[in-house]
Amino acid sequence: MTSSSHRQYSLGELTRVLGGEVAGNPDTKVQRVGTLENAGVDSITFLTSDRFLHQLPHTRASAVILSTAHKDATALPRIVCGNPYVYFARVSALLDPVAPAQPGIHPAALVPASAVLGAKVSIGPYAVLGENVHLGDGVVIGAGCVVGDDVTVGSETRLHANVTIYHGCRLGARCLLHAGVVIGADGFGIAAEDGRWVKVPQVGRVVMGDDIEVGANTTIDRGAIDDTVIEDGVKLDNLIQIAHNVHIGAHTAIAACTGIAGSAHIGRRCQIGGAVGIAGHLSIADDVNISGKTLITKSISEPGTYSGGYPFEPNRAWRRNAAQIRHLDTLVKTVKQLEKRLAEMERKLS
Amino acid sequence: MTSSSHRQYSLGELTRVLGGEVAGNPDTKVQRVGTLENAGVDSITFLTSDRFLHQLPHTRASAVILSTAHKDATALPRIVCGNPYVYFARVSALLDPVAPAQPGIHPAALVPASAVLGAKVSIGPYAVLGENVHLGDGVVIGAGCVVGDDVTVGSETRLHANVTIYHGCRLGARCLLHAGVVIGADGFGIAAEDGRWVKVPQVGRVVMGDDIEVGANTTIDRGAIDDTVIEDGVKLDNLIQIAHNVHIGAHTAIAACTGIAGSAHIGRRCQIGGAVGIAGHLSIADDVNISGKTLITKSISEPGTYSGGYPFEPNRAWRRNAAQIRHLDTLVKTVKQLEKRLAEMERKLS
Amino acid sequence: MTSSSHRQYSLGELTRVLGGEVAGNPDTKVQRVGTLENAGVDSITFLTSDRFLHQLPHTRASAVILSTAHKDATALPRIVCGNPYVYFARVSALLDPVAPAQPGIHPAALVPASAVLGAKVSIGPYAVLGENVHLGDGVVIGAGCVVGDDVTVGSETRLHANVTIYHGCRLGARCLLHAGVVIGADGFGIAAEDGRWVKVPQVGRVVMGDDIEVGANTTIDRGAIDDTVIEDGVKLDNLIQIAHNVHIGAHTAIAACTGIAGSAHIGRRCQIGGAVGIAGHLSIADDVNISGKTLITKSISEPGTYSGGYPFEPNRAWRRNAAQIRHLDTLVKTVKQLEKRLAEMERKLS
Repeated sequence: MTSSSHRQYSLGELTRVLGGEVAGNPDTKVQRVGTLENAGVDSITFLTSDRFLHQLPHTRASAVILSTAHKDATALPRIVCGNPYVYFARVSALLDPVAPAQPGIHPAALVPASAVLGAKVSIGPYAVLGENVHLGDGVVIGAGCVVGDDVTVGSETRLHANVTIYHGCRLGARCLLHAGVVIGADGFGIAAEDGRWVKVPQVGRVVMGDDIEVGANTTIDRGAIDDTVIEDGVKLDNLIQIAHNVHIGAHTAIAACTGIAGSAHIGRRCQIGGAVGIAGHLSIADDVNISGKTLITKSISEPGTYSGGYPFEPNRAWRRNAAQIRHLDTLVKTVKQLEKRLAEMERKLS
Repeated sequence: MTSSSHRQYSLGELTRVLGGEVAGNPDTKVQRVGTLENAGVDSITFLTSDRFLHQLPHTRASAVILSTAHKDATALPRIVCGNPYVYFARVSALLDPVAPAQPGIHPAALVPASAVLGAKVSIGPYAVLGENVHLGDGVVIGAGCVVGDDVTVGSETRLHANVTIYHGCRLGARCLLHAGVVIGADGFGIAAEDGRWVKVPQVGRVVMGDDIEVGANTTIDRGAIDDTVIEDGVKLDNLIQIAHNVHIGAHTAIAACTGIAGSAHIGRRCQIGGAVGIAGHLSIADDVNISGKTLITKSISEPGTYSGGYPFEPNRAWRRNAAQIRHLDTLVKTVKQLEKRLAEMERKLS
Repeated sequence: MTSSSHRQYSLGELTRVLGGEVAGNPDTKVQRVGTLENAGVDSITFLTSDRFLHQLPHTRASAVILSTAHKDATALPRIVCGNPYVYFARVSALLDPVAPAQPGIHPAALVPASAVLGAKVSIGPYAVLGENVHLGDGVVIGAGCVVGDDVTVGSETRLHANVTIYHGCRLGARCLLHAGVVIGADGFGIAAEDGRWVKVPQVGRVVMGDDIEVGANTTIDRGAIDDTVIEDGVKLDNLIQIAHNVHIGAHTAIAACTGIAGSAHIGRRCQIGGAVGIAGHLSIADDVNISGKTLITKSISEPGTYSGGYPFEPNRAWRRNAAQIRHLDTLVKTVKQLEKRLAEMERKLS
């Protein structure tokens, strides 16, 4: 873990700020977070599930965050709360705050006179802003970022290094874009004519709400005609592709390597696993969970969990079984024939 | 959509430039494109298929582009043509032309004296050119791009921001490379020796034809010995991996998140869906379509559409069915035994 | 292939440097490497397998590298050695050495006074170093790279252009990171609370050993609490996602487009194909091979090859067969019923 020097907090101080109750000595001091397995003596750790209970007796942490159900699972000083993982997240943010970017425009950043900048904006070296860019208060533009003409970025949003935002796109407040992200590149719009492709201009934008996180090297394409829309609170992992005119509902989370094809409409509060593929022009209801590597080829209208991963096996067994998939339909027909013949014999014998 | 001010065109003007016939008032003016669903009153929209006919009565567009077959599907002023989607693409390019890059070399670009630059080249801030780079007329190099030694770029080709081209690679004319693209990084060449890997130098190049589009963060590796080759008119979406010594035939289009392994040879005019995987050292014929998320493990010698996606289901049903895949071969043997036993009984009873 | 001028080597010189034995004229001169198929007369090629024996009579190469088993497969001058592919890799490195980066700090690089730089470090234009960065001897930082605070980079490691390394990460010696790589972005840590996501701070680092290669646009996330660890000699292809707290054992090689979810522990000397997905919190033993596009959902404790690709087919056949997968469990039950009914009849007839 990073070796920055931390301020110490007592459990009593933590509960005064974050709620929850202390069991054991409230003066116990902690200054960093740790896992049950690897925490040091100055650390506070957390327990989210029975699955990790066996690690609890061996932890070297000074204190533990846990739920009411696990209140008596250890004699260590502890904080009892409703949602230990969220509580831990808040403790971690308190103990190890993100170093704020130095406000100011680096002399090696290019910021045209047409830029409209809020208070305490930070623009890193070799960042390039187009014309008429609006940056809200506290926006951080990392080194090497390129922000196109007419882009709007809401307050407290941070772009890490080497992010590219194409012209006309809008980002809300408190978003976090990781390095290498590309927002607003042309959607994949091509029209066939005589065995060649004619480019279809992509004149829509990307419009993103507040509190969105976008992982490293993820790409979100601009709309073909209307906009691509990412609603508030959406969380995207790394290396995700969001095609033109996709709409992602609020508070949906998507794991890495997933691709969503054009004009797909994803509901709110969905949880989409890694390497999922979602075909274009379909609709996924709110509160849908999709397991990793599933291919979604039809709309889903009911909440629930959907899956479609192929089960892996030792190569030799896989060869044998996978070879039969190409004969499945024939097998089904054979079984139907057998049923008929058997019924016929049963009739004869009865 | 972006809010640039547009010049107005009448339907008569459009058909004089682009062909087709006006039905209804040829003086109808339009100044932007729109979808059937969301077009405003100053917009022209288009109809490509019966699938969208139900939206036609509700459109607020001022005019519609449609095919001869749909000529009488609306009373709105309209342009009748052979290929409405291509026609629409051309209208869109006319109404909303891409802002041309300002010709000239930004003072914060690094362009060595050895560079050979065509007329009206535009090189953005913080772009870096290696030695002996040749840029054709009208080439645009975006902010933050890094172009290696001995690279050649054909006329009117445009690199968006933060693109990297390694030494020795060749790009044709009128190509469009989106932000974050990497052309010519080392192929994944490693040779095993005593449980370790020895790097195999990658001394080939990437050689790209004309009229190619490459989506954001897509990577095309240089050849190991011979070159990686992308022929004219190829269209690549975002986050695609093209490995060393792949050859992609002219006018093939590939959707996002697809990976093509080393030395695969892809034909002309193929259409390859998203998240497809193509194994190395195989050959795909011309005019092959591959559905999304298919894994291609053998050469394909016949045109046609090939698929291999696993059907998704509600998780509970998937669990039940997927578990049986590991017993498919056994099931087939059981059915064969049943057939034998049944035949034996039928023989006895006959 | 690239057209740099090469120094000539005789076969005798090569074997004096690299071992192996010459058969035929040891004064045969070569100056570049070539494939069996495309080598020119000044080239040396290689034969690794019987599979390519048929190309040997047609090669225009001046000399061939081959194994003892193939010693007499050609009359061309040749080098006989134990591992022709590794030998070839070394010959290629000798004939076509990577151009060394010019040592020195480019005036347009930003290197704070707190940086600790080894001998012969090269830092390209528009590269940005944070505070307290340590670079070993001979480190090369490419144009446009952004290296965060407190990063350590071992000697002879090279970052190509536009790489981003977040604060606190550690890279070993002799690593090679290709363009667009992002090391140390936040892992995808989010905790659910009332239908929204709370960000879990990612306070771990990425710690990488020696002799690692990382392909273009690949992302390796920092640990949530403990570190993400990549051991010595690991080779990663392009567009790979390594999530927080993953541990990859020494000398494991991973092909492009693969994603490894959080806290997965991958063994040593594994070979993982392209587009593989590995679920989080599981463990893969040493010496495991995984075929392309396989989804690994459970730990693997035994060495061997594991697969899980769905077999592709012409679309019509795929439709028929894939449709039956949703009825597999029912089919199995039907077959069991048939077995019972048949056994009953056999009993009656016996």
